[in-house]
Amino acid sequence: MKAFVMRRIGEVGFMEKDKPACGPNDAVVRATRGLVCTSDVHTVAGAIGERTNLTLGHEAVGIVAEVGSEVKLFKPGDRVCVGAITPIWGSDAAQRGFPSQSGQALGGWMYANVKDGTFAEYFHVNEADANMALIPDGISDDAAVYCTDMMSTGFAGAENANIPLGGTVAVFAQGPVGLMATAGARMLGAGLIIAVEADPKRQELSRYYGADVIVDFTKEDPVKKIMELTDGQGVDSAIEALGADITFQQAVKVTKPGGTVSNIGYHGSGEFVHIPRLEWGVGMANITIVTDLCPGGRVRMERMLRLLQNKRIDPTRLTTHVFPFDEVDKAFELMKTKADNIIKPLIVFS
Amino acid sequence: MKAFVMRRIGEVGFMEKDKPACGPNDAVVRATRGLVCTSDVHTVAGAIGERTNLTLGHEAVGIVAEVGSEVKLFKPGDRVCVGAITPIWGSDAAQRGFPSQSGQALGGWMYANVKDGTFAEYFHVNEADANMALIPDGISDDAAVYCTDMMSTGFAGAENANIPLGGTVAVFAQGPVGLMATAGARMLGAGLIIAVEADPKRQELSRYYGADVIVDFTKEDPVKKIMELTDGQGVDSAIEALGADITFQQAVKVTKPGGTVSNIGYHGSGEFVHIPRLEWGVGMANITIVTDLCPGGRVRMERMLRLLQNKRIDPTRLTTHVFPFDEVDKAFELMKTKADNIIKPLIVFS
Amino acid sequence: MKAFVMRRIGEVGFMEKDKPACGPNDAVVRATRGLVCTSDVHTVAGAIGERTNLTLGHEAVGIVAEVGSEVKLFKPGDRVCVGAITPIWGSDAAQRGFPSQSGQALGGWMYANVKDGTFAEYFHVNEADANMALIPDGISDDAAVYCTDMMSTGFAGAENANIPLGGTVAVFAQGPVGLMATAGARMLGAGLIIAVEADPKRQELSRYYGADVIVDFTKEDPVKKIMELTDGQGVDSAIEALGADITFQQAVKVTKPGGTVSNIGYHGSGEFVHIPRLEWGVGMANITIVTDLCPGGRVRMERMLRLLQNKRIDPTRLTTHVFPFDEVDKAFELMKTKADNIIKPLIVFS
Amino acid sequence: MKAFVMRRIGEVGFMEKDKPACGPNDAVVRATRGLVCTSDVHTVAGAIGERTNLTLGHEAVGIVAEVGSEVKLFKPGDRVCVGAITPIWGSDAAQRGFPSQSGQALGGWMYANVKDGTFAEYFHVNEADANMALIPDGISDDAAVYCTDMMSTGFAGAENANIPLGGTVAVFAQGPVGLMATAGARMLGAGLIIAVEADPKRQELSRYYGADVIVDFTKEDPVKKIMELTDGQGVDSAIEALGADITFQQAVKVTKPGGTVSNIGYHGSGEFVHIPRLEWGVGMANITIVTDLCPGGRVRMERMLRLLQNKRIDPTRLTTHVFPFDEVDKAFELMKTKADNIIKPLIVFS
Repeated sequence: MKAFVMRRIGEVGFMEKDKPACGPNDAVVRATRGLVCTSDVHTVAGAIGERTNLTLGHEAVGIVAEVGSEVKLFKPGDRVCVGAITPIWGSDAAQRGFPSQSGQALGGWMYANVKDGTFAEYFHVNEADANMALIPDGISDDAAVYCTDMMSTGFAGAENANIPLGGTVAVFAQGPVGLMATAGARMLGAGLIIAVEADPKRQELSRYYGADVIVDFTKEDPVKKIMELTDGQGVDSAIEALGADITFQQAVKVTKPGGTVSNIGYHGSGEFVHIPRLEWGVGMANITIVTDLCPGGRVRMERMLRLLQNKRIDPTRLTTHVFPFDEVDKAFELMKTKADNIIKPLIVFS
Repeated sequence: MKAFVMRRIGEVGFMEKDKPACGPNDAVVRATRGLVCTSDVHTVAGAIGERTNLTLGHEAVGIVAEVGSEVKLFKPGDRVCVGAITPIWGSDAAQRGFPSQSGQALGGWMYANVKDGTFAEYFHVNEADANMALIPDGISDDAAVYCTDMMSTGFAGAENANIPLGGTVAVFAQGPVGLMATAGARMLGAGLIIAVEADPKRQELSRYYGADVIVDFTKEDPVKKIMELTDGQGVDSAIEALGADITFQQAVKVTKPGGTVSNIGYHGSGEFVHIPRLEWGVGMANITIVTDLCPGGRVRMERMLRLLQNKRIDPTRLTTHVFPFDEVDKAFELMKTKADNIIKPLIVFS
Repeated sequence: MKAFVMRRIGEVGFMEKDKPACGPNDAVVRATRGLVCTSDVHTVAGAIGERTNLTLGHEAVGIVAEVGSEVKLFKPGDRVCVGAITPIWGSDAAQRGFPSQSGQALGGWMYANVKDGTFAEYFHVNEADANMALIPDGISDDAAVYCTDMMSTGFAGAENANIPLGGTVAVFAQGPVGLMATAGARMLGAGLIIAVEADPKRQELSRYYGADVIVDFTKEDPVKKIMELTDGQGVDSAIEALGADITFQQAVKVTKPGGTVSNIGYHGSGEFVHIPRLEWGVGMANITIVTDLCPGGRVRMERMLRLLQNKRIDPTRLTTHVFPFDEVDKAFELMKTKADNIIKPLIVFS
Repeated sequence: MKAFVMRRIGEVGFMEKDKPACGPNDAVVRATRGLVCTSDVHTVAGAIGERTNLTLGHEAVGIVAEVGSEVKLFKPGDRVCVGAITPIWGSDAAQRGFPSQSGQALGGWMYANVKDGTFAEYFHVNEADANMALIPDGISDDAAVYCTDMMSTGFAGAENANIPLGGTVAVFAQGPVGLMATAGARMLGAGLIIAVEADPKRQELSRYYGADVIVDFTKEDPVKKIMELTDGQGVDSAIEALGADITFQQAVKVTKPGGTVSNIGYHGSGEFVHIPRLEWGVGMANITIVTDLCPGGRVRMERMLRLLQNKRIDPTRLTTHVFPFDEVDKAFELMKTKADNIIKPLIVFS
């Protein structure tokens, strides 16, 4: 079968691979739709170290092709959504309530990390009963594929933020994850949502997904502006959706005593991430800093799908480009350059 | 009346002051016992800025001398324990569940900060019904005075740490607050308590208060040692009880994915406190960082007193020195130099 | 001044009373709008025992007429919203996080219970700084008055229900509180909201406020239907918004293992409320039953007002009737009989 | 192999069975020690319906005899502790955080319910990597076997009770689970523990495990006495460890507003369990009722074992009798009659 791989750091391309083998608890899925994620770009740039001929991609839906002997809930032909994160559910971390950390930190992140990803005609699913969900009729693959990562990750940023009903939230950066964090904050009852973003198209989508106010950090100091918008009190919750030290610092600075900083961004560089000491209340202001990696699993996917089914949100507005699978290299290149105002490119498998 | 004050940055001394006035919701208390806190030393050194003739001290018990017209639960002659932190209970932060942040960050910290402290013959209590607790018969003033800050603060470090019953905890630094954090972790069901401390006397007390293992950071790398003691997994919970950047970093480094770093130390210097990026799981390992300032209030004090009443803990082992009030300057000097293996000096008012 | 009172059990009427006195922490407010609550009807029927010439009403907004010497945040002329529940913020229960239980069970419920209510030209507010909120410009009194009880109570039913984002919820009864529970569930990200209601007008409002499916209990067994709608799994969360034993039992029956039953209804009769043993998992199915009384306080009111300000909800759809204050007796009578499809009657003070 | 079975309702006996088969994720364990549980008695009496030749027992430790192809963490010869509850970790309920409810209510309870139990020379373990734990050297089988159910269940009763550090707790009934709930409350920092028990031997053990006060319900009204012991306030937390309607009602009655009733008892009879309406605050007093079934899993067992390893508790004081496996019928009979002051009979496999 055809696969789109990272040949080595800095180089991608197509290659032929064997269809994945299917162990007793596994499934093999034929991909129908996928999305390219900026983290694929980081991976190819070397963020997680060298990889050789590793299939890329972790956001995909498809049709079950094969299931192992112990799989009870699925059968070939089922249309399924597979979380980008596929935890080992009996692992120590999962038993402690943190399945995304199965085996080790971020250990539930397997695709395009420790095993082949989803940009291939077929991809493998570990613990299939626990990591796949049936896509209900009436939900398109084009929408369902957003459940796997963008919705699950962005919403987690909001879910972890301890937003009081009617409370105030600031969301830093409105890329696809940040936009879903904004949508999540809106769905979770925030009374005032302030989004920080400079790009006009993203600003527009931010309003669509629920931001009340947009702060353009190229035109004004976001910390000063957010303090002003909250009568000097700061927000109940700040969501960092970029993975940059500077926005993390700003998130701490705008959070009121007793508030929560919810980090959902991948911090890719530097020895340290910096907490501004004074605004952190010298370590005594009851400010909490929480972090997360995209929640996966069948139950999570089913809840995401339910939000689509009952029209709570339309994530397809994030799709700015569409490519057939044999042009995924072009989509990848666009995600790298962020040219053409790209937000998410949808990959269509024939 | 006689008061021990900070005359200006760097200078302390005794002076005569008027007995405090008593508003409708207030009480005035005649001090019987007090403790000197290292934070008094920091204050005099200028940590919170200039102060002029401000009475020092925030750990005290005494006898009610006067109550305001709206005070219902107390009367002159009552023997009371007053939290070091005296929140405004109707404030925004208190209504949100964070009374120590009344009015502003750390706003419940009034004594020897925004008003005169407790090192005087009489001291003032705001919202007396809410901020004082009766000391039950059978509990000495010498013990009760530990409820006001050392027990409440140290225990909070453990309470916030999300320690699972039977879980693993590391406590960084075994000063009086760190020792109470160790005792708190023990009282809250930790299955393995690792304390980091180099001083032999504090090591001994640490074992007394519940540490299973002591790591001497002058003899071995505490991060390496703690990882080894936990089979490479790290601890469920790490408590920072010093307020130093280096121990904070170590706390993050030894915390497993899904674990909690509970900061109870006052971070007194530097523009930033540093989160080690990789060990923090690049912001995605479900590690939570929580912070707190000594909880105050009648209910908190009553619970602390109940722990004394039913012999759950004996905090008086922390008392290494005793001085009469007119020698509090000597106690203060000792706390500054940490000479003579001092842990806490008890101040006796005549 | 004129007041509408419960003369004795079973009898209401108007009478002249003195304007309330204003203690140091208090305010006196001139009422501008009020709402009649079914609980006023219960009170007059004797639900809380005999009362003599007690002013009725607990849902009101108005203009500050007078403030006490210790009040800092308000001044005469301010337009304010006052929670139906006015806690004693320094009380034991408030310090424990349960301000509605100040002093005793339900102790924060003072109006028309232990002191005169709000159906008078002027009414009294205890701890004014903590229990009133400024109404921002642009929010009408007609809308703001819903913050005091209907929104705060109904939303609390949803907030306490531990609804996962995308989870399933059943709301039993769609009176004004149940409708706001439905709206709350929607605002908090429920993926499927099933409302149980037989009245056509309430069914219509239920859809407007966010229900996905309405179950008419006069036409089908709600337990059977809800199990069917959830593929035999039951709901994540069930909200009881009526205060009837039968709906409470149904709520338990439709809640899945690990789910939450959130009771917000006032259970007015019977020695016991019944938990169906088997569906409760013989006491071992991780089902949690939570209860609440309308949250009050300035912060709560500010959050409710923010939801109005940023157009998250329009509660005025609940207003089916309008009466001038001197006809509040007619409104009261309608609430008693529930004639004319009444939901909430708005009272306009001249 | 030899197995001790329930032949049918009301009848037990020994029979020969095949050694269990071992699937890819499973293990087969040779039993070394077991405990008889009162729930075995209930099962034989018909509490969960008819069963034919079902092997009894669910509390056991042993030596791994065989592991499946997918098992990575264990090998034959390992000395292991196996939770009484063996969840399906990928199940819907486990993903939601409630592994004991795998598949259905109480679905993690498999032994002597839906499959053969542990009173046989060999027993089967599903998802072996997730449901077994290595017993560290220095912990005897005699002690480790208490981790499987008595400690895990009793402690859960305390863990779920939201006991504030220094708070007040009442534990209803001091059978083996109730005694472990008392020990759990003590390990979790309760400041006052009131145990309700009439049996002198159990009273004595109750004091040993941490009760401060014992209320003998045959001599005084426990509700009245507990209210008296708490100055009329009631307790922060009440633990029901019997599974009787009357103690459940008492638990609600003694719980203060905002407090928690933690049910850990198996309620075996009656259509309803009764909530006393008035003391429940007519459904509005912020009283929470939580329930649980013995937590299982490797992480749970490891934490229980750590408590033994570091001498936090000695559960072997519960062992009042010892029988070889071929006399387990005598142990079973004693548990039925509760003769000879039996608490727990230890079963020794040769």
